[in-house]
Amino acid sequence: MKLWNAHWSTSMDELTARLNDSLPFDQRLAIQDVRGSIAWASALHKAGILQEGELARIVAGLSQILDELEEGRFTFQPSDEDIHTAIERRLGEVIGALAGKLHTGRSRNDQVATDFRLWMMETCDQLESALCGLQKALLARAETDWGVILPGYTHFQQAQPVLLSHWWLAHFWALERDRQRLKAVREHSAMLPLGSGALAGTGFATIDRFTLAEQLGFSAPVPNSIDAVCDRDFAAEFLFWAALLGVHLSRLAEALILYTTREFGFITLDDAYTTGSSLMPQKKNPDPLELIRAKSGVLIGKLTTLLTILKGLPSAYDKDLQEDKPPVFEAADTLAVVLPVLSGLLNTLKINSERIHQSLDWSMLATDVADYLVEKGIPFRQAHSVAARVVQRAASLGLSLRELPLDEWRAVHPAFEQDVLSLLDLSHCLDRRAAFGGTAPGAVRKQLELARTVLAD
Amino acid sequence: MKLWNAHWSTSMDELTARLNDSLPFDQRLAIQDVRGSIAWASALHKAGILQEGELARIVAGLSQILDELEEGRFTFQPSDEDIHTAIERRLGEVIGALAGKLHTGRSRNDQVATDFRLWMMETCDQLESALCGLQKALLARAETDWGVILPGYTHFQQAQPVLLSHWWLAHFWALERDRQRLKAVREHSAMLPLGSGALAGTGFATIDRFTLAEQLGFSAPVPNSIDAVCDRDFAAEFLFWAALLGVHLSRLAEALILYTTREFGFITLDDAYTTGSSLMPQKKNPDPLELIRAKSGVLIGKLTTLLTILKGLPSAYDKDLQEDKPPVFEAADTLAVVLPVLSGLLNTLKINSERIHQSLDWSMLATDVADYLVEKGIPFRQAHSVAARVVQRAASLGLSLRELPLDEWRAVHPAFEQDVLSLLDLSHCLDRRAAFGGTAPGAVRKQLELARTVLAD
Amino acid sequence: MKLWNAHWSTSMDELTARLNDSLPFDQRLAIQDVRGSIAWASALHKAGILQEGELARIVAGLSQILDELEEGRFTFQPSDEDIHTAIERRLGEVIGALAGKLHTGRSRNDQVATDFRLWMMETCDQLESALCGLQKALLARAETDWGVILPGYTHFQQAQPVLLSHWWLAHFWALERDRQRLKAVREHSAMLPLGSGALAGTGFATIDRFTLAEQLGFSAPVPNSIDAVCDRDFAAEFLFWAALLGVHLSRLAEALILYTTREFGFITLDDAYTTGSSLMPQKKNPDPLELIRAKSGVLIGKLTTLLTILKGLPSAYDKDLQEDKPPVFEAADTLAVVLPVLSGLLNTLKINSERIHQSLDWSMLATDVADYLVEKGIPFRQAHSVAARVVQRAASLGLSLRELPLDEWRAVHPAFEQDVLSLLDLSHCLDRRAAFGGTAPGAVRKQLELARTVLAD
Amino acid sequence: MKLWNAHWSTSMDELTARLNDSLPFDQRLAIQDVRGSIAWASALHKAGILQEGELARIVAGLSQILDELEEGRFTFQPSDEDIHTAIERRLGEVIGALAGKLHTGRSRNDQVATDFRLWMMETCDQLESALCGLQKALLARAETDWGVILPGYTHFQQAQPVLLSHWWLAHFWALERDRQRLKAVREHSAMLPLGSGALAGTGFATIDRFTLAEQLGFSAPVPNSIDAVCDRDFAAEFLFWAALLGVHLSRLAEALILYTTREFGFITLDDAYTTGSSLMPQKKNPDPLELIRAKSGVLIGKLTTLLTILKGLPSAYDKDLQEDKPPVFEAADTLAVVLPVLSGLLNTLKINSERIHQSLDWSMLATDVADYLVEKGIPFRQAHSVAARVVQRAASLGLSLRELPLDEWRAVHPAFEQDVLSLLDLSHCLDRRAAFGGTAPGAVRKQLELARTVLAD
Repeated sequence: MKLWNAHWSTSMDELTARLNDSLPFDQRLAIQDVRGSIAWASALHKAGILQEGELARIVAGLSQILDELEEGRFTFQPSDEDIHTAIERRLGEVIGALAGKLHTGRSRNDQVATDFRLWMMETCDQLESALCGLQKALLARAETDWGVILPGYTHFQQAQPVLLSHWWLAHFWALERDRQRLKAVREHSAMLPLGSGALAGTGFATIDRFTLAEQLGFSAPVPNSIDAVCDRDFAAEFLFWAALLGVHLSRLAEALILYTTREFGFITLDDAYTTGSSLMPQKKNPDPLELIRAKSGVLIGKLTTLLTILKGLPSAYDKDLQEDKPPVFEAADTLAVVLPVLSGLLNTLKINSERIHQSLDWSMLATDVADYLVEKGIPFRQAHSVAARVVQRAASLGLSLRELPLDEWRAVHPAFEQDVLSLLDLSHCLDRRAAFGGTAPGAVRKQLELARTVLAD
Repeated sequence: MKLWNAHWSTSMDELTARLNDSLPFDQRLAIQDVRGSIAWASALHKAGILQEGELARIVAGLSQILDELEEGRFTFQPSDEDIHTAIERRLGEVIGALAGKLHTGRSRNDQVATDFRLWMMETCDQLESALCGLQKALLARAETDWGVILPGYTHFQQAQPVLLSHWWLAHFWALERDRQRLKAVREHSAMLPLGSGALAGTGFATIDRFTLAEQLGFSAPVPNSIDAVCDRDFAAEFLFWAALLGVHLSRLAEALILYTTREFGFITLDDAYTTGSSLMPQKKNPDPLELIRAKSGVLIGKLTTLLTILKGLPSAYDKDLQEDKPPVFEAADTLAVVLPVLSGLLNTLKINSERIHQSLDWSMLATDVADYLVEKGIPFRQAHSVAARVVQRAASLGLSLRELPLDEWRAVHPAFEQDVLSLLDLSHCLDRRAAFGGTAPGAVRKQLELARTVLAD
Repeated sequence: MKLWNAHWSTSMDELTARLNDSLPFDQRLAIQDVRGSIAWASALHKAGILQEGELARIVAGLSQILDELEEGRFTFQPSDEDIHTAIERRLGEVIGALAGKLHTGRSRNDQVATDFRLWMMETCDQLESALCGLQKALLARAETDWGVILPGYTHFQQAQPVLLSHWWLAHFWALERDRQRLKAVREHSAMLPLGSGALAGTGFATIDRFTLAEQLGFSAPVPNSIDAVCDRDFAAEFLFWAALLGVHLSRLAEALILYTTREFGFITLDDAYTTGSSLMPQKKNPDPLELIRAKSGVLIGKLTTLLTILKGLPSAYDKDLQEDKPPVFEAADTLAVVLPVLSGLLNTLKINSERIHQSLDWSMLATDVADYLVEKGIPFRQAHSVAARVVQRAASLGLSLRELPLDEWRAVHPAFEQDVLSLLDLSHCLDRRAAFGGTAPGAVRKQLELARTVLAD
Repeated sequence: MKLWNAHWSTSMDELTARLNDSLPFDQRLAIQDVRGSIAWASALHKAGILQEGELARIVAGLSQILDELEEGRFTFQPSDEDIHTAIERRLGEVIGALAGKLHTGRSRNDQVATDFRLWMMETCDQLESALCGLQKALLARAETDWGVILPGYTHFQQAQPVLLSHWWLAHFWALERDRQRLKAVREHSAMLPLGSGALAGTGFATIDRFTLAEQLGFSAPVPNSIDAVCDRDFAAEFLFWAALLGVHLSRLAEALILYTTREFGFITLDDAYTTGSSLMPQKKNPDPLELIRAKSGVLIGKLTTLLTILKGLPSAYDKDLQEDKPPVFEAADTLAVVLPVLSGLLNTLKINSERIHQSLDWSMLATDVADYLVEKGIPFRQAHSVAARVVQRAASLGLSLRELPLDEWRAVHPAFEQDVLSLLDLSHCLDRRAAFGGTAPGAVRKQLELARTVLAD
């Protein structure tokens, strides 16, 4: 027996009911559903539809249900097809026929959109906090690892030396963009659908949607009732946010996985963040990082799912929209685990500074060699070519740039003088990159300060 | 305490364990895991690694576990990180230290690939059966609805009349392609990874992988151990199969949704396959069809997920591969519900023949008018233009083609003679399309026969 | 001969060059590349690296190239691998060896990111204008079609009557969200990468990136040089914006396609926005709407592409990033056509008011019947059930609700009185929905005003 | 002036025409279109619709057009909306009004499906050849690099030693699966739509579709005319094939990128397959490999595009289907470049055997240590734990397993005897993995033989 099928000739096919029922996932909106109902009852009262006493009894009943939910005492019934039905059924058990007045002037269409947005706002707050935790872990690393010089890679070939702190901060800024986007998702979610009915607006003109919005923490009611029941932009935005964050995490994870290989050896993960092998006794594997990398695929798939579901839906509310919630819930759950795991992993990993130092290839200074010639008036394009020949000459002699004698330099180009040898110094190389955003220690200090400031905001 | 961390300095971080543990989803491979282990024990025995008595005790223990699983008595422990660990742990409880011999020469890498493929073969069989059920429902409709003439649409504009049976069969053939692809997925899954160890092959040369393959129902062992542990093509093929099937179902669902609208009114769904509204008392909604349409988005998203996860994985086995199972399981579960629901819905829907008949637009015969002129020697391109003018003329007079008097026809083109009026007959129009694959009743009868034959195969 | 391979042992494999060269698509950044170079030359001068006269000659050369580009006189050479190389090559031809000084302190990595962001800012402006055009077309329809009452659908079943103007506005608000998101994309694009070098920051500390940013219209320099060269969030955000807009357009297109069918007949497209059939003379097809619907798939695919490309990239700049531009360019081109086409189609379509009116099903007033009982004190849940029985009773008698005599109403429930018949009036039904966002004429007037205001912003 | 709009009140809106016209991409089907038309004319003749002489003139005209196309002399006109229109227009210019007879009994719906499938069959053949080329390059490497022992990785941590040849072959088998799938795509494409008309079947019953199929190289006609014009499964299958192949290539590319890093140093790419840096003179970058990795994202996006386009299309032919071709053409073009580039890169790269040898970590033999204990009767699970402690002991002493003295072994477990030291030998370790599919030289030889055999097929 459903809310709507008193006049049906047959009950729903059993498997169809399994396809149809959303309770297995939307029960997670229980608290929000009750909160929304309390506010709605209050709006019905102000609109003259519920008596004072009726309101009190309904609110008392809903409050009892809230307690049952929070204490894990609420029992779902097989006949409950969704969370709204379950709560209304239970309210009837608690307060009797009066419960039948609660659904006056509203529809499950505006109700579920309201519940989902309420949940979204809370979830954004929780995830922002987890994201901040990860950003703080990156800041902490940037501070802790101060002074370590890392090979900077492009095309995963050594390119130019950078401060490890600078590298950590590069990841900080990507996450900072994610955080700003998350704030936008929350803001966009805070528009109230309730009072839109099934699609045409509530049938009771005296319902005050602005007060409802305020009471439930929304910034304003959605200005069009049709749009209100079919808009899932906030869910799509959330999934895009999650997918792009997932991509950022996959990039960081990939780098860390490579840095933990025997061949790089730049970092060592704490045992608490590694696994072993059931077969090979010597293994320590960076499983959490691999799973974080894989989750980007999971999150991208969720986004594809929702966008494809929404494609071509013709009317105000189509049942297809029910499939909006599983991908969103799963994305949120994924990130609620991934973010703190990665924070913990960063907080506990060990930097192998000596190994990093040994890995630096002096030919990374070739750009500085070219710049040296530029400062002597040689056009950069020509200087680039000269520097390339110096690198080749050194390689053919089996020497690093640091070991190449001055006459070899001068054999390539007469503009090289004694001072070129003093150029071959990592600190010097870093120091040259002191323009805003560069890897010179002074510039990175300023960047660190800026990062702290934006995060405090 | 895990299988592999006796020598770890700390236990795994708790949230990391939650990210890492696959038991919540791979417990579904329990039966397959035990079956694989029984076969493996037998192979170890044949290879001289297990004594006869050891084999017997291990097999007895595993058989007991199989019973526990099948009877729902098996209890998982919080320390079980995956199904392999859980079974090995339980075997130890049942038969003691001897259980520690079972993992000899194998790895969870080849074990899970084997379990997953075993599951896939069984699942393909079950889904093929469900798919056949849907194909039969379409065949039954084609037979039941014989004689009903439906407007055939292109661009969702009425185009040419077709037999409703022909239209049902169009959907049959799409599903037949799906069924053939499903058979290929099953066949491609039937390659045995077991005996590949972690990646380099089992350390025991006497293991006979061909016998193992035969015993477990595989067609042959995978010929390369590295490939064996990282190949997930069969899972990707399955998800593509599911996504394309989902697309086919969405197309059928979309058409049926439109045919149930008040404006079309071609079909009426049985109450058992509709839902009502919590707010609007008059509503009967085709929810199952909408959900089926939406599921195509879910299935496409799963495919995207797996392909994106696999992208760029560099080594034999990476932990990312663990994320292969949830999308596959969810896709299979989705279709295991959707296919029979749609079959049931088709079996019970009612065709509103009268309404369909009234909806036919006589201008759909315009092509036949042009063909009439072609038979009189007028090039088709010119005939097309003449017929268009006839249609326009009738429209401007507010008449249907059937009502247009002969002199009006002749005013447009003198080649029209009395016999053009006899052309304006639906049966005649259908009968003309008697070439193989056309909508003439005779051709459709042959097609129906062919459909029955391929399905019997 | 490339910029970088003076010291290469062999030239690039020919097919590899075809894979590698980005000129076929990045030549579209030519203007932006020159503008960026002019600003860079100026920054080099201020930093003391270029003499006054050198700057003047370089700027003059670049200005000449700008003219050549704008007048279509610029000729690309087979050796040009990308737009940066082409411009530098041409500059050398125009001003000689001095051209070799321009690339001092910058890399193609920061250069292309700068060009791309410049292009993005301009493109956002153009697309915002096209989007506004479409929003205005919707507003115009809402005004023109004032007073037409449309069946409002949920599950594509008639649900409740709504003003057609209200329905057009529902689509307006979805686009308004798109417009706000587009502004955010533009804002997020306006961060300057130039001065970041290959990844470590420019080698010349005196380069003033803040002045550069201002000069080129950016709001600020990117604060981390590594992030600056590998951040493609702005491109991903743009593609998400495009995909979600595409979804919104597909929903509107789908509804319009259905409204143009013979069965609905609500609207007629202007001939300029339809096509015919090469075979069937009577056909008029809504091809542009179908293509618009299909483009949502194209746009979702582009988003998937970029996110998947970015997944797992480990280092500052990887060549994979070169594949960021084709999807973005194609998405922008698609929308630059689709938006004005849809605007034109809306501006010219004809509403068939009479047909729409005839299609209205009186049972859409069943909710109002239930609400009538609510006002008589009957709990809504019970009222819903009573109203459902009334609808059934009327259907079984073959009458519409309007035709059902009072004693039949009263036979179902005694609370019905004479005044229930006056309820059965569409205007009355609309008027009841006067709460903010509802479909009552007064509420829609206010909504229209609000829409005009936000668009004027 | 289009084929179909003689009776239109206005010409098509200009931008709409740009959206609508498919000529920019479908001109690539020109040859197939003419071939199909020649066969169709022949079928019309056999069906008694064209006279012998008419057939001859039409075929002569079409042959002339074929020449024009093949010699690049064919000129498209602005009014040509698609390739079919262009060919019919040109035929009219060449042979006059008789050209108007060619379109008798067919529609562009069945025509384009036929053209596209013809193109697909040819393209599959070409791509299979390119794929074979790549498989041969892998086989050649497996032969050339015989004897090199590579660290085998799981989780990108050294796991167990494998033959490099074995590793190359792992990639061979993935491609072999791709090749088998490609054959299936070709086979599934070889069903003839021609003769299905717009959707209901050709209006001329005497058309012999079986002969048509044979003449054009199809295996049979599609058995249902509605299905024939809307089935795009073959295109979706092709894109899935391409996406999964792309994923396989990305995995190989990723590994090779890592092997070319300074830190691994396992391989050196030939200069013809690397690029340099415009800024950093020392750089040699593996750009082609990075682009190949990125292309997997491009290909996955194309698949998503087509599946999403197809989702929910309700009728036989919808214009949305026109968007099927760009993703397919682009995917084919991408692979037609990528496959030979990767073959060339493999054929020319240099293996740094010495460097590979030095990188081998002796602790990779830990599994063999455990297996040693197993052979002494110790259960594997216990042996695993003992071996882990040996590895730890060696690490704590700063020794490799090879350097650990016997008494240290025995201190961990008394079962170790002198012979354990002889275990520590790479050849021995490989030799143990002689079961089918393992990395023992003998097993790999057999595998190589098998690979040669399947490829010869």
